[in-house]
Amino acid sequence: MAPGHPGPAGRDPVELLERATAGDRVSLARLLSMVERGGPASRHVAALVYRTPPPYTLGVTGAPGAGKSTLTDRLITAARGGWPTRHDTPAEPVDQVAVLAVDPTSPYTGGAILGDRVRMQRHATDEQVFIRSMATRGHLGGLALAVPDAVRLLGAVGMPVVVLETVGVGQMEVDVASAADTTVVVVTPGWGDSMQANKAGLLEVADLFVINKADRPGAKEARRDLEQMLDLATKRQPGDWRPPVVETVAATGEGVDELWATVGEHRAHLRSTGLLERRRAERLEQELRRVLTARVLERVHGLAAGAAFEDAVGRLVTGQADPYTVADRLLD
Amino acid sequence: MAPGHPGPAGRDPVELLERATAGDRVSLARLLSMVERGGPASRHVAALVYRTPPPYTLGVTGAPGAGKSTLTDRLITAARGGWPTRHDTPAEPVDQVAVLAVDPTSPYTGGAILGDRVRMQRHATDEQVFIRSMATRGHLGGLALAVPDAVRLLGAVGMPVVVLETVGVGQMEVDVASAADTTVVVVTPGWGDSMQANKAGLLEVADLFVINKADRPGAKEARRDLEQMLDLATKRQPGDWRPPVVETVAATGEGVDELWATVGEHRAHLRSTGLLERRRAERLEQELRRVLTARVLERVHGLAAGAAFEDAVGRLVTGQADPYTVADRLLD
Repeated sequence: MAPGHPGPAGRDPVELLERATAGDRVSLARLLSMVERGGPASRHVAALVYRTPPPYTLGVTGAPGAGKSTLTDRLITAARGGWPTRHDTPAEPVDQVAVLAVDPTSPYTGGAILGDRVRMQRHATDEQVFIRSMATRGHLGGLALAVPDAVRLLGAVGMPVVVLETVGVGQMEVDVASAADTTVVVVTPGWGDSMQANKAGLLEVADLFVINKADRPGAKEARRDLEQMLDLATKRQPGDWRPPVVETVAATGEGVDELWATVGEHRAHLRSTGLLERRRAERLEQELRRVLTARVLERVHGLAAGAAFEDAVGRLVTGQADPYTVADRLLD
Repeated sequence: MAPGHPGPAGRDPVELLERATAGDRVSLARLLSMVERGGPASRHVAALVYRTPPPYTLGVTGAPGAGKSTLTDRLITAARGGWPTRHDTPAEPVDQVAVLAVDPTSPYTGGAILGDRVRMQRHATDEQVFIRSMATRGHLGGLALAVPDAVRLLGAVGMPVVVLETVGVGQMEVDVASAADTTVVVVTPGWGDSMQANKAGLLEVADLFVINKADRPGAKEARRDLEQMLDLATKRQPGDWRPPVVETVAATGEGVDELWATVGEHRAHLRSTGLLERRRAERLEQELRRVLTARVLERVHGLAAGAAFEDAVGRLVTGQADPYTVADRLLD
């Protein structure tokens, strides 16, 4: 589809993808930077990777300070043990894990590792674990567009599992984390007050809840709150998935195996019901809407910069026509 | 420019505008409903009114409970006394005042009067005062588009002063209120905590601050806070306008004459510096951007509904092309 545009050595996406697929992390990091920056190079990468089946994606979101990074760190270890299966069959191996730590509030970092990424340094020497931060591109909706491309890229180089970890519980963060096959919402004892504003949104996207720091006072109350919310909020049919609530202490690793087992149950549920394919198709539809909107807005921004636009503003200021007439003439 | 589309009796914008200009409030209300609803009728109205010089607009915004409605009520009375002038010249008369009470959070009301509008009932029998609520149209950016058309309509029927009162201090409310010649931000003693999140935004749009309920404890501290913010935040040149801080007790009317006099000073400043025309031209430019974006997004929504879109999603789901390629083919 896309020919391999020759570029400076080490900048050709085709060549970088070959190297990244062979295990070269520097090439993979370069490709992710291209995706993060957007523009023609990012489209070239997108055109190279769309065909491979997507990796299994796990979204992890929750308020700052809930311990998401430490939990993700522990989850990597658990995931490396393979997908849990019924006791009479061998575990499905997970030979590699990638983490995309997404921070919509921070500016483009060029791939620099966020401060708390250092907690994951214990995996730094593990060649089968790839950790990468992504921040906003400079433009509207850039991150929402870049993340699916980044996930497909990670799948294309052979990652079977990608964890999307987001900072914060704003709408953007929740959107990113919920663009996953399984979305984990992390809360802590006493969480209710800090996340009041977005409770309903979190409830809507959660496939499972984690009460982290469950050794602190208030864990029981947090569970009761969550279960009550789940009782009230959902019109569930028999056979539907009810988000389980798992308690963990990420600092010690307590409960993390149970969490990973529950992720595995959700995955099995999605696969057996056909929901996995249906939700992925819905996400692609939503992605297409976003890409369409972004492409069209790019054209508007182009329009709103030229001499014709200045002229149109002049016609408005001097009362020669109404804004709709002026806009339509600019568009045609 | 726009021919008078004949419609059912009393639905033809040209005829309605004639009647509204002659003082018929029912016709004016119908025209405003057309503008509020959007669509072809609203564009017809827009095409009829763009030529008349705009009325002087006064934006009033601030947290719920700050007493904006009562204050607006008092301001109407003050405004009816005419624009304040130097003591040796007669006051410039203000024979009519219109109030648009804008609530972006409430659904389309068809022109129903908001609950707290009843406070303004004392003006209900005053034929020179026109009060009207506006709520969201059902679509993206609808209110931001409707308000300037509504203001031009009110000017076209002869209103020299329009007050834009908004509920709340969210970005949308602030955007609406700041689309005024003079923007008044209303706070109360102890306001700091309730508006922490948007302090910077309010500071940016305020042409003057009102501390309402100034008879309550904390008025002095509120003034000190505001003055400090103003000292810190603004790189002001000599001759620039520094937003004055006026104390009022809307419930009794205390301070309202001073407030109106200060509005008059700001108006005189805008006129003498040429800022009035410059800011109006900037608002028209911004409005044109919004109209362009809205028109283009309408086209995208049209695209995202047809069979071609279904087909495009199918090509994504079956991995036949990447989202950018699919989007561009849809657009072309």
